[in-house]
Amino acid sequence: MESVPFDGDKLNQLMERAGLDALLATSRHNIRYLSGGYVDHFHARVTRAGSSQYVAAVGIPRGRYDTAFYVGTIGEKLQLAAMPIWIPSIDVSGGTTGRTAVVAATQLKERVPVNSKIGLELPFLSADSFLTLQRELPHATFVDATNLLHELRAVKTPAELATLRSVAETVSASIAATFRAGRRDLTTAEMSSICEKEMTERGVEFLWSFTCAGPSYLRAPSAMKWEDGRALHLDCGGEIGDYLADICRMGYRGKPTQLAGELHAECLEIQDAIRQFVRPGTPYGELARGGEEAMARSTNGAIGRFVAHGIGMVSHEQPMIDRESQRLLEAGMVLSIETEYHHPDVGHLKIEDVVAVTSNGCEGYGDLGRETLIV
Amino acid sequence: MESVPFDGDKLNQLMERAGLDALLATSRHNIRYLSGGYVDHFHARVTRAGSSQYVAAVGIPRGRYDTAFYVGTIGEKLQLAAMPIWIPSIDVSGGTTGRTAVVAATQLKERVPVNSKIGLELPFLSADSFLTLQRELPHATFVDATNLLHELRAVKTPAELATLRSVAETVSASIAATFRAGRRDLTTAEMSSICEKEMTERGVEFLWSFTCAGPSYLRAPSAMKWEDGRALHLDCGGEIGDYLADICRMGYRGKPTQLAGELHAECLEIQDAIRQFVRPGTPYGELARGGEEAMARSTNGAIGRFVAHGIGMVSHEQPMIDRESQRLLEAGMVLSIETEYHHPDVGHLKIEDVVAVTSNGCEGYGDLGRETLIV
Repeated sequence: MESVPFDGDKLNQLMERAGLDALLATSRHNIRYLSGGYVDHFHARVTRAGSSQYVAAVGIPRGRYDTAFYVGTIGEKLQLAAMPIWIPSIDVSGGTTGRTAVVAATQLKERVPVNSKIGLELPFLSADSFLTLQRELPHATFVDATNLLHELRAVKTPAELATLRSVAETVSASIAATFRAGRRDLTTAEMSSICEKEMTERGVEFLWSFTCAGPSYLRAPSAMKWEDGRALHLDCGGEIGDYLADICRMGYRGKPTQLAGELHAECLEIQDAIRQFVRPGTPYGELARGGEEAMARSTNGAIGRFVAHGIGMVSHEQPMIDRESQRLLEAGMVLSIETEYHHPDVGHLKIEDVVAVTSNGCEGYGDLGRETLIV
Repeated sequence: MESVPFDGDKLNQLMERAGLDALLATSRHNIRYLSGGYVDHFHARVTRAGSSQYVAAVGIPRGRYDTAFYVGTIGEKLQLAAMPIWIPSIDVSGGTTGRTAVVAATQLKERVPVNSKIGLELPFLSADSFLTLQRELPHATFVDATNLLHELRAVKTPAELATLRSVAETVSASIAATFRAGRRDLTTAEMSSICEKEMTERGVEFLWSFTCAGPSYLRAPSAMKWEDGRALHLDCGGEIGDYLADICRMGYRGKPTQLAGELHAECLEIQDAIRQFVRPGTPYGELARGGEEAMARSTNGAIGRFVAHGIGMVSHEQPMIDRESQRLLEAGMVLSIETEYHHPDVGHLKIEDVVAVTSNGCEGYGDLGRETLIV
């Protein structure tokens, strides 16, 4: 077997279980994952071009990594030469939604039977690419493999954990810096713009910032100002190489009101309490119920909400936490854990952390700034 | 007619000519264009989420702007309330590729006949959305409307021109600042990172930078260093609200070689010569041939290449310059004009400008730094 940068045996098993003869990935994050870090730098942040959009593809016939192929555009030739990937066959005659599908179909025809079952990323494949694949491979069956790829990525390698830690630490440091820079007259749109600069300065790609200035619940950056005595939540996302962090911290202009202080303390209590459940072997359902029960015990539980979900290359991925799930947490999984309260006098109070499952428990990534931050 | 933020009569005519009963736009840039500037801030830079991706839709039954509709996700409710759009019907029960398609189909069923011809953005609509539309609207005919939307956007409003000018000026200022910051030992990856920070600092979203350090032709940011006596091209893209600029400037570490100086001068000669063709009424073909002829006259024309293409929300849009085209340039169109030479001793020399068609000629946007810049 070629040495692949992911768990090749696991992918074989997942494909076998799903009855797939081949997998054709077309989303940027899964191309990055399957190729071992590669994406066309030109189209990493913008894909629209001419009457189509850029799309690449990674094709993997089941169990035959030696026949895997990559489809890109001619402009990638020198980048691929300078940064070689493990994939043995590289075809740069694709690039647009139309061309990539034609080339991928040709490659698949050479490798798998005409009546193959082929896994696609249906939410990340364009309609015209799909119609082209159907036309070129009329006897093939196409099924969605989005969740299969989530499954493949569920347990992170040490290198992935290091990236996720770095992104989380950078996002919380950027949020802290944004609060510090939050002068009296700034709007939430300006705060968001500061947060973007703070992330960029630290080498993280800015994705979003929810900027909720209490008592309003509006979280979109706007002309609203963060008034004295009020809570501001910064719930921000950033990424490095498609690995993302999603972190929420609270700042207060002046001493928080008693109620705000209480709600903030309750957020932290629940966030801290839940970490005892985050260890290898905990059923997903136990974690979900643990959060719900902690919320039910909290003084303001009636206006609170607790959520936990996997995070990695996608903001809601495996482990998909569900109160009925018997699946067990494994070391190397990473969670986003969030507790929030809505109160008309205070606004939207929320703490969201990134927590990794370690060999014997868990570790918060980017825990900076969880306490009551008074500006 | 509702007051729409684009040329409503033109869209009617385009839809009539294409026989469309309705248009359903799903790309971020066309949603921004048709809505008058709106996009969900949370998903503007990242759409992947869970087992699907975020997608919104704008639906317009032909000639019935009063029945136009927007489909988004529940999380957009407060943003839409804070930043109202002209679209009379807002449905926030969509959001994913699956849900948005179901909701859009329901909205369409209420507005147009079952056997309608519906224009979609096939390269920007996901396969699962398309399959859902087919299932929900089994008697409808679906056609691609990507070029129709290019046509609608071909002539820019004064506000759009102001944005495009601002983006172009900022991208060239960022490139100039990057050259200034280019210390001896920096890699091209580090130069790209500086360029990103310079754009972010100035309020432009970084899209890409090609960093070609001669005599190599590799344009992807890499561990390569910009050596003394060598040419570096920075060919960079940035955007504000989906309006983009694509500009290339050359820097030289020390005095350029005679050949590099000559090639640079030839780039500028051609770039300057072509501007006499950029005025209302010039056939696209005349512009293309003018560039080719100027290239043919240039001393090193055999290794040169001239290209011009429309730019606005997409980097290759109307006017689609083609040597056979009889179509005429109009005031308010915007072009990207590029001249480049490949020479094994020098590398890849290139100047790319943004040039707008004015009422009586043209105007370069962001012309800063076109001369030989010696660092």
